[in-house]
Amino acid sequence: MSKFAIGIDLGGTNLKGIIMDQQGHGRHVTRIPTEAHRGGSRVMENILRLIDELIAKEGSKEHLLGVGIGTPGFVGEDGMLLGGAENLPGWKGTQIYVPIRQRFNLPAVAANDVTVMALAESRFGAARDVKNVICLAMGTGIGGGIVIDGRLYKGTHGMAGELGHVSVDPEGLPCNCGQKGCIERYASANGVAEMAIRMCKEAMEQTAFVELVRSDESGVTSKLVYDYVCRMLARAVGMYCNIFAPDRIVLGGGLMMAGRVILDEVVKHAGSYCFSDIWERCKVVIAECGEDAGVMGAAAMVFDEFSQFQGYQIVTESRTAVPAH
Amino acid sequence: MSKFAIGIDLGGTNLKGIIMDQQGHGRHVTRIPTEAHRGGSRVMENILRLIDELIAKEGSKEHLLGVGIGTPGFVGEDGMLLGGAENLPGWKGTQIYVPIRQRFNLPAVAANDVTVMALAESRFGAARDVKNVICLAMGTGIGGGIVIDGRLYKGTHGMAGELGHVSVDPEGLPCNCGQKGCIERYASANGVAEMAIRMCKEAMEQTAFVELVRSDESGVTSKLVYDYVCRMLARAVGMYCNIFAPDRIVLGGGLMMAGRVILDEVVKHAGSYCFSDIWERCKVVIAECGEDAGVMGAAAMVFDEFSQFQGYQIVTESRTAVPAH
Repeated sequence: MSKFAIGIDLGGTNLKGIIMDQQGHGRHVTRIPTEAHRGGSRVMENILRLIDELIAKEGSKEHLLGVGIGTPGFVGEDGMLLGGAENLPGWKGTQIYVPIRQRFNLPAVAANDVTVMALAESRFGAARDVKNVICLAMGTGIGGGIVIDGRLYKGTHGMAGELGHVSVDPEGLPCNCGQKGCIERYASANGVAEMAIRMCKEAMEQTAFVELVRSDESGVTSKLVYDYVCRMLARAVGMYCNIFAPDRIVLGGGLMMAGRVILDEVVKHAGSYCFSDIWERCKVVIAECGEDAGVMGAAAMVFDEFSQFQGYQIVTESRTAVPAH
Repeated sequence: MSKFAIGIDLGGTNLKGIIMDQQGHGRHVTRIPTEAHRGGSRVMENILRLIDELIAKEGSKEHLLGVGIGTPGFVGEDGMLLGGAENLPGWKGTQIYVPIRQRFNLPAVAANDVTVMALAESRFGAARDVKNVICLAMGTGIGGGIVIDGRLYKGTHGMAGELGHVSVDPEGLPCNCGQKGCIERYASANGVAEMAIRMCKEAMEQTAFVELVRSDESGVTSKLVYDYVCRMLARAVGMYCNIFAPDRIVLGGGLMMAGRVILDEVVKHAGSYCFSDIWERCKVVIAECGEDAGVMGAAAMVFDEFSQFQGYQIVTESRTAVPAH
């Protein structure tokens, strides 16, 4: 009997849901507003409403294995949002698994939204044929995800993968996290923009340079910025190589809309920041799952966690799965 | 029926072997010279001789599950030494598993010696009660090991865990690996000694400082060096936290003979180099397995890899394990 999973991607603006099979074929893709400004319990109600809508479209929950959710922040093993979701007021402290279990008698699993994207890339995207994968999502900030032997690595209390906060320059730009020189300060959308502004300011003070810029403004400035971004990113990529010796490093997020320009430059330099034995066996590639990565990875988690699940046996308030015989 | 494993630690001077049960109780600890200078095939012969001696002491190989080996360098999945064992001439390129299988009809598994130590600490030592563990062995250089969900993470081709070669200062001291500012250049025995020499030289040029040193020579110099070492080590520890969110970081190796002096100082600073949510849930501790960590971790690998193993079915030259029924 084939099984399906619900995957939900919790964004600041929209909740997106999918029903998907284990091979990554999805249907009933649905969006409703998150209503983040109305607080954590409203967000939870909307998640339940989205699950309702998906089940209604499917017609039955008979073949559903469970619900997977990608969310900003850290999720504890018991389904409590532990922190790190600053743009969702009141979401921290919310219990995610219990309401889903109570309303639908379905097991739930949640993890950080970027780590979930990494799982999608490793299962269905740019790293679907390998086992050990590092994924960087370079958007406003930088998030990371780690897939070890084909499974999502969440770390203690779901907090692993803060790959945007490794320092590539300990005396560099101060980061919101309290450190200096985090790669997020250089290779995120915000970081690139700030760097461009700073370089332009510096250029104003160097006459010869300004003349150069004036002679070919668009080209020179952006190239300077990108060279710098790529060099910093190459340092971080080299570091991930020495630590993980991964099969593949997947670069995604809005910044990678620039595509091969960044990729080629990073690949050119990263080898000088790690062991050649490791570098020769690692490929750096661009993400492939696009905007569906979140829901697909969330649904994929369900198959990983509950493929033996056969329904709750309500004995006490604690979650008890009856194993398959 | 209880089962036992052979664990072997391949050092530059000695080969050490143990027969151990799954709970970490060992017997028949044996040492023979490695004879590294006589080349890779001689080292392999000595490994076979050591296994012979251990089996002779045990009286039979009836209850033996397999052979685990911790070795310098990287080991491929097929048991080929791929590189990184510079102090063992001719060891690179040696096939480790086949001779053991042919001579003893036992399966073998090998991994980098420091990663194997990490497994020992996570199974029997300072991290035996937790799942996600980072281990640093600070000796002449710095090696690292990663345990994920209780199992050794080897990375692609066994190369993961080069934790001594993350840069804590990209404009810092050049490292043999080609990078600058690797933590190995600061927090290894060699690194500390070089730093002491450099600081003394600099001190010679600063009269006020020299007078300070003269007034309390022993105290001031070593404190200066250690403060610097610990600050750099704290940076690296913070980085491992942000990447892995581990339950525990285990510090071992010769440098940790200084014990709590280093530990306390690292713990004091590391929290400022990572997220507080992660830091609050991670403990930094001193290694406990001592000089047996190598053989114990090597034997532990055998239980992880071959607990279902019931003997080879020789069909072709390829390794075929018959699963338990």
